[in-house]
Amino acid sequence: MRSMTSIFEQINCPDDIKRMNDSQLDELAAYLRETIVNTISKTGGHLASSLGVVELTIAIHSVFDSPRDKIIFDVGHQCYTHKLLTGRMEQFCTIRQYGGISGFTKTCESCYDPFGAGHSSTSISAALGFCAARDQLGENYKVISVIGDGAMTGGMAFEAMNNAGHLNTDLIVVLNDNEMSISKNVGGLAQHLSHLRMEPRYIKLRDELRTLVKNIPRFGKRILQIAEGIEEHLTYLVIHGVVFEALGFSYFGPFDGHNVTQLRQTLKMAKRLKGPKLIHIVTQKGRGYLPAEKDSTSWHGAVPFNIETGNGISKSPPSEIPQYSAVFCNTLMKMAEKDKRIVAITAAMPDGTGLKPFEDKYPNRIYDVGIAEQHAITFAAGMAAGGMKPVAAIYSTFMQRAYDQIIHDVCLQKLPVVFALDRGGIVGEDGPTHHGVFDLSFLRTIPDLTIMAPKDEDELQHMIKSAFEYNSPVAIRYPRGTGVGVKMAGENQWEVLKPGKGEILMEGKDLAILAIGSMVYPAVLAAEKLNTYGISAYVVNMRFVKPLDRELIVKMARATGHIITVEENTIVGGFGSGVQEIIHEEGIRDCQVQLLGIPDHFVEQGNMNIIREKYGLSSEGIVNAVRSALQMKK
Amino acid sequence: MRSMTSIFEQINCPDDIKRMNDSQLDELAAYLRETIVNTISKTGGHLASSLGVVELTIAIHSVFDSPRDKIIFDVGHQCYTHKLLTGRMEQFCTIRQYGGISGFTKTCESCYDPFGAGHSSTSISAALGFCAARDQLGENYKVISVIGDGAMTGGMAFEAMNNAGHLNTDLIVVLNDNEMSISKNVGGLAQHLSHLRMEPRYIKLRDELRTLVKNIPRFGKRILQIAEGIEEHLTYLVIHGVVFEALGFSYFGPFDGHNVTQLRQTLKMAKRLKGPKLIHIVTQKGRGYLPAEKDSTSWHGAVPFNIETGNGISKSPPSEIPQYSAVFCNTLMKMAEKDKRIVAITAAMPDGTGLKPFEDKYPNRIYDVGIAEQHAITFAAGMAAGGMKPVAAIYSTFMQRAYDQIIHDVCLQKLPVVFALDRGGIVGEDGPTHHGVFDLSFLRTIPDLTIMAPKDEDELQHMIKSAFEYNSPVAIRYPRGTGVGVKMAGENQWEVLKPGKGEILMEGKDLAILAIGSMVYPAVLAAEKLNTYGISAYVVNMRFVKPLDRELIVKMARATGHIITVEENTIVGGFGSGVQEIIHEEGIRDCQVQLLGIPDHFVEQGNMNIIREKYGLSSEGIVNAVRSALQMKK
Repeated sequence: MRSMTSIFEQINCPDDIKRMNDSQLDELAAYLRETIVNTISKTGGHLASSLGVVELTIAIHSVFDSPRDKIIFDVGHQCYTHKLLTGRMEQFCTIRQYGGISGFTKTCESCYDPFGAGHSSTSISAALGFCAARDQLGENYKVISVIGDGAMTGGMAFEAMNNAGHLNTDLIVVLNDNEMSISKNVGGLAQHLSHLRMEPRYIKLRDELRTLVKNIPRFGKRILQIAEGIEEHLTYLVIHGVVFEALGFSYFGPFDGHNVTQLRQTLKMAKRLKGPKLIHIVTQKGRGYLPAEKDSTSWHGAVPFNIETGNGISKSPPSEIPQYSAVFCNTLMKMAEKDKRIVAITAAMPDGTGLKPFEDKYPNRIYDVGIAEQHAITFAAGMAAGGMKPVAAIYSTFMQRAYDQIIHDVCLQKLPVVFALDRGGIVGEDGPTHHGVFDLSFLRTIPDLTIMAPKDEDELQHMIKSAFEYNSPVAIRYPRGTGVGVKMAGENQWEVLKPGKGEILMEGKDLAILAIGSMVYPAVLAAEKLNTYGISAYVVNMRFVKPLDRELIVKMARATGHIITVEENTIVGGFGSGVQEIIHEEGIRDCQVQLLGIPDHFVEQGNMNIIREKYGLSSEGIVNAVRSALQMKK
Repeated sequence: MRSMTSIFEQINCPDDIKRMNDSQLDELAAYLRETIVNTISKTGGHLASSLGVVELTIAIHSVFDSPRDKIIFDVGHQCYTHKLLTGRMEQFCTIRQYGGISGFTKTCESCYDPFGAGHSSTSISAALGFCAARDQLGENYKVISVIGDGAMTGGMAFEAMNNAGHLNTDLIVVLNDNEMSISKNVGGLAQHLSHLRMEPRYIKLRDELRTLVKNIPRFGKRILQIAEGIEEHLTYLVIHGVVFEALGFSYFGPFDGHNVTQLRQTLKMAKRLKGPKLIHIVTQKGRGYLPAEKDSTSWHGAVPFNIETGNGISKSPPSEIPQYSAVFCNTLMKMAEKDKRIVAITAAMPDGTGLKPFEDKYPNRIYDVGIAEQHAITFAAGMAAGGMKPVAAIYSTFMQRAYDQIIHDVCLQKLPVVFALDRGGIVGEDGPTHHGVFDLSFLRTIPDLTIMAPKDEDELQHMIKSAFEYNSPVAIRYPRGTGVGVKMAGENQWEVLKPGKGEILMEGKDLAILAIGSMVYPAVLAAEKLNTYGISAYVVNMRFVKPLDRELIVKMARATGHIITVEENTIVGGFGSGVQEIIHEEGIRDCQVQLLGIPDHFVEQGNMNIIREKYGLSSEGIVNAVRSALQMKK
């Protein structure tokens, strides 16, 4: 065993496992699983899904020739085994850390990652693109998409399957069914078919047949056997494969996703066959680590933990300060108690968005629509048109999926849908695919939408209350993580905020810092530090990105001639841009407007505070920006 | 017949047709069809799809109680009969005109339109939203979604069906199958099943059974009958319904969509049944008007035409000036001739995007992915990752559907995909759902994307050539309709434009007009007029919205202290906003920046020139804006 381990440690590329026999591969699986649990217990990460596909990943790499063959993992958070087998064993301990390797597949990280991911349901489209390119260029490689049952509920996966059937090219889709979501569908179909077999007409026919046949001497038994054979054959194919076959795929499965030997045989067979193929395997999320096996949802994205106990380890003592997501849910629950029209919509993330307590309390007033952001928003629009007050809680980065629906179905019709954009701004370790740093820009463009961002967890309460009062489309954008630690107003103190009105937090004379959301407190701190340098700054909590507080902006511009805007969003077309637009519209000349925010490039992964510091989104960053601007002026 | 007609003319609401018998309803269908053809021959409009659903719409309104029951037409362009039956007979002649009724359903137009549309595949989501609202509020009405087979290929329709099966509420989806797209799928399934029935194991079993049974005295014939009954029963349901049944719908059909009597019976039956139901009807696009029956694609969106001949009538003499779409396609074909890696992708619009000649010449190098914008873009990304140079030609307004994919799959990975955004700016009669007036704003936000807009049809050629040379993500945005009428450079004269560089078209001193795309020529004209008032203006064709020509902007700002930006896009976060950002970044004070563009609200329908005039997007509009700004200054 010891010598085995050292062999495994030297794995540098997939070729190194191609000569291993089945039992060695089983040992390899155990070794990799241990490595993953050990590492993620220190770094945190997507544990449950990665543990589920250890055998599958080994089988794929032992049968196919990556990087020549293209292996594309949907979402990419189940790629840890893949990383370990493709030359990233040594760097694995840096996963998801600032400067380290990514928690997802990433083309610039390795030639073994032919396509990057992070958002769900893209892998079949990308894989089909590779197939089409290969066919056009007369090349000859295999393309494999590995996609989970949850990701299959995303509409673009269906669009891609439909297109693949039409193109009829060589493509292997491995459906990794860990019974998180598709089980319901397959369950529905299975249920339907058993229902169908119970249908009076069918039962009558069958019983008649049986009675007749039973009475036939000599032939009876054989006939019954054959008839049942036909029935079973049809049923089997119908239950499991027909939906995929309907889309033009050859269907194989379901297979045990933890049996390397069988997986290898199946993949070898699929490698030989022409056309689009779907291999349905069943795996267990969290496989091999008992706490994760027992509760795969909690272990989807794990914080660092004690391997023995499975308890999370926090570097800082447990915070008394609530998470923004929790405040969102609490507030919503209290609002919902008084207004039966309030309902919640989530796209497969009741936990992530903090809605679990709402679900527990109001199981009939929450709609989990699956990984289906487009549908989620138009469904919300329909509910609003039908007299309800829906709130759609979706991470900022995933709301990009529903941009057209926000414009076309909600705002154009002025329907009272509340968008709760969780994880607005820097999200940290998940990196560039997940930072919510475009939303203020792409939402601000839409007419008739109100956009708010709270300065702290208390203000979030007031904003949620306000959103339901406005009776029009409203987006509330708040950050990942815990609040600021302020006193929380009780329900009877929640106020309806005046639309488009900011609040002056500090008076000044030299310049005005207009801040939004998470940047308000750093702005206050910055102003206090600036005071020590003899610089006197207004600090304004703008509250609304749309409509902007025109009156206040004009006042600040006229009073100081120097405005600094601060936002945790790209500076391109964002909140600060809106402030500039107003200053010019009002014909104010000789006012400098300095925009602080995320510069115009994709932001890397890393601890939220490291990243915020790096881009100057901190009190110190603001102080430095102000001081250098003032020096330039002199 | 005469008296009948006058009865029909007085139809004011759906109740007026509820007492009519089947033969009267047939006559009504003929009358409505005539009305539609007559009107659209004058106004232009979506003729073929509207003619296809005359009987269906009559049947629905005679069975259900609108506006209590909610009838939601997907896309909405097939709603002409619906409009005629719901009190809009008199205004029908104003359809799609400035100030007239919409060519789509629109909630603010009529209480009979419970949900507006314009973009595809939203109706099931919206209908399901109504159902959920009804169930929450304990109300009791029916919800009917009418959706075409083309719209069914959109991923969000699948997301909605999946969710509907799960919610298991009362919902009627009418699948209007006019064999434009879904026929391929149903065809695929049918083919699969006949293949399945030809499978050796199955055939062996069946033949064995038949031989055995045939030899049985007395019972033989009856057994065979029964066995075939079982097979047929299963087969029928499997072929036609299983995909929908798999999603939890009860399936009925296919039915003749032009048989009012049968449609009414079916709808009455569906009205009584519980749960989600799918009624599959087959209709003929263009039904009842021979030219449209023969070529429903050309008659999808019709210009005014001569009813007798079917020939289009143009108010102006036929133009020699090519359409932008045609120039796009021509250029692409010439580029493709030399570079085998160039391929085209369309989302069910090879005609609309001008790609038909490309399709004719290179049938294997164009990918029509269906109404599936999300997949289209990630598929393009996959092709680019596989070594190709794909161009995705999609209308600006529909590109909103693929926003996340542009960010996450193309730009984050810096893949060389070319986005050809047709119909950028005002599109005219299709109105608020179709104007492409947000793209410069929402695209500008994305890092690593180059954005160009040509001043005329010749420049479009150079931009397409340039886009393929840049080897990175590029968007080219051009307007609907014909070019400007300039001389077209021959292929050997096509230039690779220097990225991010504009061109000065006129020198001046008082101010600088920075124009983009369609606004460049009006800016030149404006400057000439301004000269007659003694005002001397620079005119710059900026060419690039991203990267912006920083050097030139600074030069203009320093030289004149007064910049006017002009764009056919919202002024919120658009091109002009970008110019402001640079001016402040460069620390330039005392420069006024005036933004001309679409104001921050949804733009109504109407002739493109009327709308452009209204918003001052014309030479006169620019002149007026400049003069009033200068007067203010004085």
